[in-house]
Amino acid sequence: MTTRRPATRVEVVRDGVRTFDEVITEEPLQIRVDDVDLAVTMRTPGHDFELAVGFLVGEGVVRDKVDVAEVRYCVGSDQQQDYNVVTVALREPLAGGSKARPTAMTAACGLCGKRSIDEVHVACPTLPATEPVALTSLLALPGALRAHQSLFDRTGGVHAAGLFTRAGDVVAVREDVGRHNAADKVIGRALLDGRLPLHDHVLVLSGRASFEMVQKAALAGVTTVVAVSAPSSLAVAAADRLGVCLVAFGGNVYAHGERTR
Amino acid sequence: MTTRRPATRVEVVRDGVRTFDEVITEEPLQIRVDDVDLAVTMRTPGHDFELAVGFLVGEGVVRDKVDVAEVRYCVGSDQQQDYNVVTVALREPLAGGSKARPTAMTAACGLCGKRSIDEVHVACPTLPATEPVALTSLLALPGALRAHQSLFDRTGGVHAAGLFTRAGDVVAVREDVGRHNAADKVIGRALLDGRLPLHDHVLVLSGRASFEMVQKAALAGVTTVVAVSAPSSLAVAAADRLGVCLVAFGGNVYAHGERTR
Repeated sequence: MTTRRPATRVEVVRDGVRTFDEVITEEPLQIRVDDVDLAVTMRTPGHDFELAVGFLVGEGVVRDKVDVAEVRYCVGSDQQQDYNVVTVALREPLAGGSKARPTAMTAACGLCGKRSIDEVHVACPTLPATEPVALTSLLALPGALRAHQSLFDRTGGVHAAGLFTRAGDVVAVREDVGRHNAADKVIGRALLDGRLPLHDHVLVLSGRASFEMVQKAALAGVTTVVAVSAPSSLAVAAADRLGVCLVAFGGNVYAHGERTR
Repeated sequence: MTTRRPATRVEVVRDGVRTFDEVITEEPLQIRVDDVDLAVTMRTPGHDFELAVGFLVGEGVVRDKVDVAEVRYCVGSDQQQDYNVVTVALREPLAGGSKARPTAMTAACGLCGKRSIDEVHVACPTLPATEPVALTSLLALPGALRAHQSLFDRTGGVHAAGLFTRAGDVVAVREDVGRHNAADKVIGRALLDGRLPLHDHVLVLSGRASFEMVQKAALAGVTTVVAVSAPSSLAVAAADRLGVCLVAFGGNVYAHGERTR
């Protein structure tokens, strides 16, 4: 059942005939920080260390490669679990002790969108001014992302996130059954390569821009997000407040148009 | 910021001109069971009581209308929060006491997909045999769902779930910024109408079928799921194990084809 391959062959009936189909692999991944179970996410196996550290960037737990002492699979007695539990050891222990659950979103007792944005804002360094990038260049990036989506071609129904330089060069593309995982993986890759904060990078999303995606981008220092589909109201409000330029594929600029020209 | 309208008007720059656009509203909703904060979900406001009780069906906490004593908004001193916190009062207290967090997915310390399915299987009554439904009828349902997606027409980038009878009649359609919320809302509506278990119903999803969606369907008693996009490996495995017929829009039948003809 547990497989490390990103696609899985399954039996299927099509037009009354039994045949086979490739589908995207989905397996749970538990992310541990030191001895704390922080989260379980349903993800496509592969690039799990990137996913774990990228997730922690979006939670405000790590900001730089130096914050991470080690990333490892948890090897136990159950072979099936070995590759579904990742432990991130930090250089400095979690603030608040080992019981702390440092997410902005789950800490509040009663909340509204404005408060959610305020909490991210506190955890988020101010994004600097940037040299404007041509809107036409930004709108070419979803096509560049699509060209890298090999799993989508094989399985359909899979999300992708891509990190590009301002010049339009691809840094990393990841595909995953979960849209947030794909973003975590490219951000985690960039962290492990010592690229954070990502002020001079563009994050491209195969789907919609939600609050959570803008939060992840801002905490990684990304100044521009291009989404293939329309954003949510809270994504627009968060981008506006946090200094993120938010562009949708159709050409709408929803926030911080001064980063484009 | 907090709005109960499902769409929000935002400023946007298009072709260098400042104008307006309607986007889907996204706000956090905290779901409480008695005095326990169970979950926060980013959702589109509206049908919040349905969302809360539907979520609890998918967690195995409630199975029938009689399990729910009352559903109410938490009215506090902060006007902004009033409609973002919903409390579900149960007839019988949560097993394990008020500290219990009864989700199958987060309780495990180290896990694999097979174990996730096993846990849902324990919480899930066996689905009965059903009279086969014509595959052509099932494949017409995504079109019927699409015809009800008025928010999609206005805002783009919004998911939908629809509950239909075996005869193809629509019971409920809900649109939401989150795909899981849309499913929770139609299941919650059905619960409040006393329709559970939904053995004679078909759940139609505007997107992919993931493990979580099959879990929600099975716990509500749904015997057939039709998804517009391809399923994940774990969705196929879960459907197979739990007795759910899983069909994708292209015509592939991934599990329990005996429920179709």
